[in-house]
Amino acid sequence: LVVAKFMSTDIGESFKAKTLLFYGHYDVQPAAKKKWSYPPWDMTGADGYLYGRGVSDNKGPILATVFAVASLYRNRQLHCNVCFLIEGEEEAGSVGFYAAVEQYRDYFGHVDVILISNSYWIDDETPCLTYGLRGVIHTEIEVVSPANADVHSGVMGGAFAEPLQDIVKVVGQLVARDRQVLIPGFNDSVRPTSREEQELFTELAAYAKTHVPGELDDMAKAQMLMAKWRFPTLTVHNIEVSGPSSNTVIPRSCKALVSMRIVPDQDLNDVINKFQRYIKRVFVELQSTNTLTITVGHRANWWLGNTVSKYFKAAERAIEQEWKMKPLHIREGGSIPAIPFLESVFKADAIHIPMGQASDCAHLPNERLRLQNLISGQRVIENFLYEISR
Amino acid sequence: LVVAKFMSTDIGESFKAKTLLFYGHYDVQPAAKKKWSYPPWDMTGADGYLYGRGVSDNKGPILATVFAVASLYRNRQLHCNVCFLIEGEEEAGSVGFYAAVEQYRDYFGHVDVILISNSYWIDDETPCLTYGLRGVIHTEIEVVSPANADVHSGVMGGAFAEPLQDIVKVVGQLVARDRQVLIPGFNDSVRPTSREEQELFTELAAYAKTHVPGELDDMAKAQMLMAKWRFPTLTVHNIEVSGPSSNTVIPRSCKALVSMRIVPDQDLNDVINKFQRYIKRVFVELQSTNTLTITVGHRANWWLGNTVSKYFKAAERAIEQEWKMKPLHIREGGSIPAIPFLESVFKADAIHIPMGQASDCAHLPNERLRLQNLISGQRVIENFLYEISR
Repeated sequence: LVVAKFMSTDIGESFKAKTLLFYGHYDVQPAAKKKWSYPPWDMTGADGYLYGRGVSDNKGPILATVFAVASLYRNRQLHCNVCFLIEGEEEAGSVGFYAAVEQYRDYFGHVDVILISNSYWIDDETPCLTYGLRGVIHTEIEVVSPANADVHSGVMGGAFAEPLQDIVKVVGQLVARDRQVLIPGFNDSVRPTSREEQELFTELAAYAKTHVPGELDDMAKAQMLMAKWRFPTLTVHNIEVSGPSSNTVIPRSCKALVSMRIVPDQDLNDVINKFQRYIKRVFVELQSTNTLTITVGHRANWWLGNTVSKYFKAAERAIEQEWKMKPLHIREGGSIPAIPFLESVFKADAIHIPMGQASDCAHLPNERLRLQNLISGQRVIENFLYEISR
Repeated sequence: LVVAKFMSTDIGESFKAKTLLFYGHYDVQPAAKKKWSYPPWDMTGADGYLYGRGVSDNKGPILATVFAVASLYRNRQLHCNVCFLIEGEEEAGSVGFYAAVEQYRDYFGHVDVILISNSYWIDDETPCLTYGLRGVIHTEIEVVSPANADVHSGVMGGAFAEPLQDIVKVVGQLVARDRQVLIPGFNDSVRPTSREEQELFTELAAYAKTHVPGELDDMAKAQMLMAKWRFPTLTVHNIEVSGPSSNTVIPRSCKALVSMRIVPDQDLNDVINKFQRYIKRVFVELQSTNTLTITVGHRANWWLGNTVSKYFKAAERAIEQEWKMKPLHIREGGSIPAIPFLESVFKADAIHIPMGQASDCAHLPNERLRLQNLISGQRVIENFLYEISR
């Protein structure tokens, strides 16, 4: 954890100046070298872009912010306090991050607004402000046979309930063919779509070229974008079996990785309870002689920003001033657990200013960041710091 | 392929002597060294047993037969012709075996009876004669998304049909919770159980300690043994996914390994057709945007020996003479594709004399063969060669 505080350059005023907490992470995903056109671990400049693992996720945005603060500080124009909170395990589940922040909460003092810059525009041309993220619940379902070993399917096949057949029956009943999650009550507290939201998504769909297929009509595009960003979903990622995975073996046990992405106003614990209750009921109905266990792993809450706050308006102005156009209000289907966490710990709203373009390829080969986005990004942050200090 | 012919020692009589074809294999399964108490690749004698990979499956029985023939030959008591046909790829699907035997079919000449010794008694005490095997059909079901890559489940989850969710829905509809195969017509040509068979299995259940749990009643034991030996079954062995199997990835494609064990009087091609038709219908009902393909791999027919032939009676007498008890008539749930194949090529019945005990651990750590079974096995084969020559 790297923490750095810059106090307002208005001598004697820092105690009444606003305080902004910037959260970012310096760790990165692995890189499959063979798939890269540039060396992933040396930054390469080409065609107006910087290429390298981590340039967009999240080192570039961190540096743009550091340079913005340093520039204002040098010119004695930093009218607010800025606290950097940079971690190195975001890509690995932020192990220890939450406990450390809670333990040293007092060190940070009062925080007025939280800033992060860790996602992307909806396309490559249009500046955006991200106001929502889905939460996530990772689970593991395991079915184990009373047999103490994998067995031969010729010798034993037909004589007992096979764990893999139980598990496919169970996970096969989680999602309907129209992709509705079948867990009873799962959708009960999903916030209904407002007319404004419907209009916003219809507008966004026109920009979302990399997010929705071009051949769909506007209505279908908006629906697909909503399915990714504002509705919950359930994915079965993988089913692992014990033993050699050969076509003569009945595996003794198997494990399904299942995750749910949750949205406002679903409650993490309520969803977990409903999930467990439903899985157990479906399994009981199989009357199997095997044993099923459910493990709930990592979980992160959804986040919905306050789009009418003065900070959100300040971010809008900061972006418009630099890019000469109003930012689109977008959401993301992924999860950044630190955001709802920091909002709750510091009782402050978070503002999420995406710096990179849709084609940045975070986590993928040839991750990049446009130089223009880095330079303008710094100026957007400078504008924002100025705006919130007024 | 090792082929060796021994002609009857009755000078001038070999052309009218009976000819027996012995089929065996000298190749073996791999050995997980760490799980062995004895070195798998050096034969060790201990407690009246020989330990080592392949001693029971199938080198011991081959050598007992070689020694039986050599002994009779040396003493000029070989009153029939014996042809050895020993292959080295049985554990790897007998690649090329079938084509080679068909190509050189004339070389073998007329065959009266086929002998193999490649399975095990029902327990450790009671000599047996194996009169049936199940067939097998290996298949692969693949579901592929129109997306050209694995995608992030946060970013894309909810927007399209996930191949793994399709495949679990499909394979989840193959077997009912009472283990009946759900493919329409699958069971139509399964031969009904006769009263004799019911009685036989009830008798066998008392011996089948390693095959059925002791706590079941006799009826349930017999049923379980029938489920393993005389009824068909379907196993889902494994579901593989493309990509890194991580809990944030929606795999672009997935593949289920599915096999069916078939029995008299199911027809291989008929079962394959019904399987394909049903899978396709279930998939169409999902109305998925993904693509499903079915590949049928290795297949082997079931085998049901002729238990009223003179050769079967001869084998019974040969065993009884040595072990002083009538052999039990048993079946096996596994498949030995060479048996129905050789029967069909040579238009002769096969006799299957298991030499080892139920606890031999073929394919498993500490494979062994009791010395007594090897020695008595040689004498049983000698008796059998004598009996069929009368």
